[in-house]
Amino acid sequence: MTTLSTAPITPYNLNQADPASKPDHSEAIAALQAQFAEQLSVNPTVCEQHGHTMTWLANQPPDAVLTAHDKHDVAKAVAICNQYQMPVIAFGIGSSLEGQLNAPFGGLCIDMHAMDAIVQVNNEDLTVTVQPGVTREQLNHYLRDTGLFFPIDPGANASIGGMVATRASGTNAVRYGTMKDVVLALEVVTASGEIIRTGTRAKKSAAGYDLTRLMIGSEGTLGIVTEITLKLFGISECVASGICHFPSIEDACQAVMMTIQMCLPIARIELLDALQIKACNQYANLDLTETPTLFVEFHGTDDGVREQAQTFADIIEEFGGTDFAWDTDETERKRLWQARHNAYHASAALRPSAKPLSTDACVPISRLAECVSATAKDIEEAGMIGPIVGHVGDGNFHVLLLVDTTNPEEIATAEDIIGRLAMRAIEMDGTCTGEHGIGQGKRQYMDKEHGNAIGIMRAIKTALDPNNILNPGKIWPQSLSQANVA
Amino acid sequence: MTTLSTAPITPYNLNQADPASKPDHSEAIAALQAQFAEQLSVNPTVCEQHGHTMTWLANQPPDAVLTAHDKHDVAKAVAICNQYQMPVIAFGIGSSLEGQLNAPFGGLCIDMHAMDAIVQVNNEDLTVTVQPGVTREQLNHYLRDTGLFFPIDPGANASIGGMVATRASGTNAVRYGTMKDVVLALEVVTASGEIIRTGTRAKKSAAGYDLTRLMIGSEGTLGIVTEITLKLFGISECVASGICHFPSIEDACQAVMMTIQMCLPIARIELLDALQIKACNQYANLDLTETPTLFVEFHGTDDGVREQAQTFADIIEEFGGTDFAWDTDETERKRLWQARHNAYHASAALRPSAKPLSTDACVPISRLAECVSATAKDIEEAGMIGPIVGHVGDGNFHVLLLVDTTNPEEIATAEDIIGRLAMRAIEMDGTCTGEHGIGQGKRQYMDKEHGNAIGIMRAIKTALDPNNILNPGKIWPQSLSQANVA
Repeated sequence: MTTLSTAPITPYNLNQADPASKPDHSEAIAALQAQFAEQLSVNPTVCEQHGHTMTWLANQPPDAVLTAHDKHDVAKAVAICNQYQMPVIAFGIGSSLEGQLNAPFGGLCIDMHAMDAIVQVNNEDLTVTVQPGVTREQLNHYLRDTGLFFPIDPGANASIGGMVATRASGTNAVRYGTMKDVVLALEVVTASGEIIRTGTRAKKSAAGYDLTRLMIGSEGTLGIVTEITLKLFGISECVASGICHFPSIEDACQAVMMTIQMCLPIARIELLDALQIKACNQYANLDLTETPTLFVEFHGTDDGVREQAQTFADIIEEFGGTDFAWDTDETERKRLWQARHNAYHASAALRPSAKPLSTDACVPISRLAECVSATAKDIEEAGMIGPIVGHVGDGNFHVLLLVDTTNPEEIATAEDIIGRLAMRAIEMDGTCTGEHGIGQGKRQYMDKEHGNAIGIMRAIKTALDPNNILNPGKIWPQSLSQANVA
Repeated sequence: MTTLSTAPITPYNLNQADPASKPDHSEAIAALQAQFAEQLSVNPTVCEQHGHTMTWLANQPPDAVLTAHDKHDVAKAVAICNQYQMPVIAFGIGSSLEGQLNAPFGGLCIDMHAMDAIVQVNNEDLTVTVQPGVTREQLNHYLRDTGLFFPIDPGANASIGGMVATRASGTNAVRYGTMKDVVLALEVVTASGEIIRTGTRAKKSAAGYDLTRLMIGSEGTLGIVTEITLKLFGISECVASGICHFPSIEDACQAVMMTIQMCLPIARIELLDALQIKACNQYANLDLTETPTLFVEFHGTDDGVREQAQTFADIIEEFGGTDFAWDTDETERKRLWQARHNAYHASAALRPSAKPLSTDACVPISRLAECVSATAKDIEEAGMIGPIVGHVGDGNFHVLLLVDTTNPEEIATAEDIIGRLAMRAIEMDGTCTGEHGIGQGKRQYMDKEHGNAIGIMRAIKTALDPNNILNPGKIWPQSLSQANVA
């Protein structure tokens, strides 16, 4: 009986405790220098900047950074890396949160910032084709006169390529979906340096395997994206923002559930816990009631938005929601949402000496209140500070732990809280990450979440990247003891 | 330099001209009989019924049919098939359109009709978990008191498992998406007989490869689905149906484009060409204007639906749309949509001696009018009868060719029209099939549509099903001359 190949993926071992295990890539770098001359930098500062990480994971720089100008640069570089079996990692803007851009085995970083062309807008079809270095703010700025917009908003001004790689989503996902929903087609450089296209500009297809969705969220481990065709959406005639307070997390979550069940086409529905509101009050001298609070946004026609707001008012009343204020005026909208916009910096200011570390999880919405409450209790019992903000319409929330990363004990406590949250989410039939991805930081939860489906993922990885050159050391499970902790 | 494995997938060759090439599976069948006793049938009539095809492709029955009662039956049967390298094909209800259920190399058909349990409804989360033999009508009947519904409607009362396999969509897709958008998680039996789970009940995840979307649309060539978790939607307070006529296909398509661009959340928008309207008039003694006609449906609140209908009325006026009638009363709604509901049988009645053969294609909406018109011209010039019906909000449309399948010349003409349509759609940056799938019937267009991305699909297939036992002879390109034509 022939079974699946389960050959381990290990040209590189994962133990970074011994720097001597980092392979010597000088031959491959020389070949790249011959090909790319000044497009290639081996400057240590440049390399360090490209092993960017927003966690406590130690910086692991690549050996060289290539500024790619087009898909042919990428294809040539990947082919050389494959020839020399050297790792290759694509870099967008460096806003990933789980060490996706670290180079634990050295190798080449391909910086996509110069591939920032907006290739084609098709107004009639509501599609746009962009290069991976385009950022979401750049794209929306470009679209400003078309009446169209690109809705996915993960907070950071991420590159579209990076958003594809991590299957990004954010505040608008409850209405407009995540990257998996808005990408129509990709151009991808495979591990052998071949350029393929996945998908077309048709809105749907039943022709063959969905390589587009396979590449989305694969964090650069199956291919490097060199062009992306996206769906766009019309900007609504009317936008309204609102805010309201609840006696408890449970009440707020019940109101969210009812909102979703009633098919209210809410565009954003964000939960801030009492600590987060307190942080916002202190940060911007506000006087919001320090209880769990929902921030909402409605998109539609004038009448439609008014009707949505009224329905929402009726819903929250049932669950003890108070002080519901909403407005369509842009200045007033910004004022209402100020606390939400400031959440990150306000949280950080609760403990200025610490580093704010963001983690996320996503559960079925019926389990959200329980998951958030248990996590808040964990944080409190550990004596940590960790405000909670959630894209609660999707059952997705973030904890921003304020950690002294020079203190190993505190790191261990934070890791424990994050680990318990990941396991709790998985046990609730949810996921250890709704939008940040696995990277290096969440590899230890992959087995628990996917069980033996990991074998199928691994078989795909081995088939598509037999030399394991594409972003090695990411996604695949390893024991916690092997983690790359600074 | 190590490159991708491009080993051909050929334990079975595709040339069915020689029936002697069909392998002898008696040993494997004996092993299955020992395991399953009366659950297994080798009755030729039963086998023939399970090699169901709704095209001109000849019936190619399996050697045996297993009635599966649970996932363990499926896992055991697949493991035995893998051991003996015998093909295995899952059967839902037999409504696929491109020969997906044929068994060109014989083997085992696993009939899923007895796996028809609705495992769990989660009203609060708007999710349901079902076995693959549940049909969409059965599911919606079951949900009738919950205020929720499952929106994907491909026309036939297909099984949910079959709809996953073919990435089905249909009339509601413009608002609610396709199977790729509404499936949250799958349980799948892999080629080795292992049971895996892909995904969770969380609405989104960034944890690892999207195996769910990889399985959806893979037509049983990567695994056999044994359980499906679906998103549900709330039934709108108000539903309105409407109809209006246009001077030309171009005008109708322009109105559709404007409707989509204005973000009107239309639930259905269907185009019937003049010939189709004529057929409907004859069939049901109606007196509709015999011009291109749009059938629409609006879902929302009472006020919301009224506003949508008014906006739509304003849009169509710009493009010469006339006689717009709409209603929220159920009897009146049915009367208005009667022609759309009758389309298939009305078309068939245009030539009762012929077999109605349905094909589909999908293009960017800006190219829809051109694609439909060129196809109608092809049909006319060939002297064929082929009314056109489209899910035009998605750029997807069907041609129902009325073919005397006893006449090889007519089959050749029909194949030529279908081939020209497939190639035209691909050249317009669209796809040779929006919702029917590839099966046996559209393999010859895969190379044109996917180019060298086929190599990546093939590498995945080889990695996940090394013995090519899962529905062999489907999806992969072959030359037209090798096609299995009756």
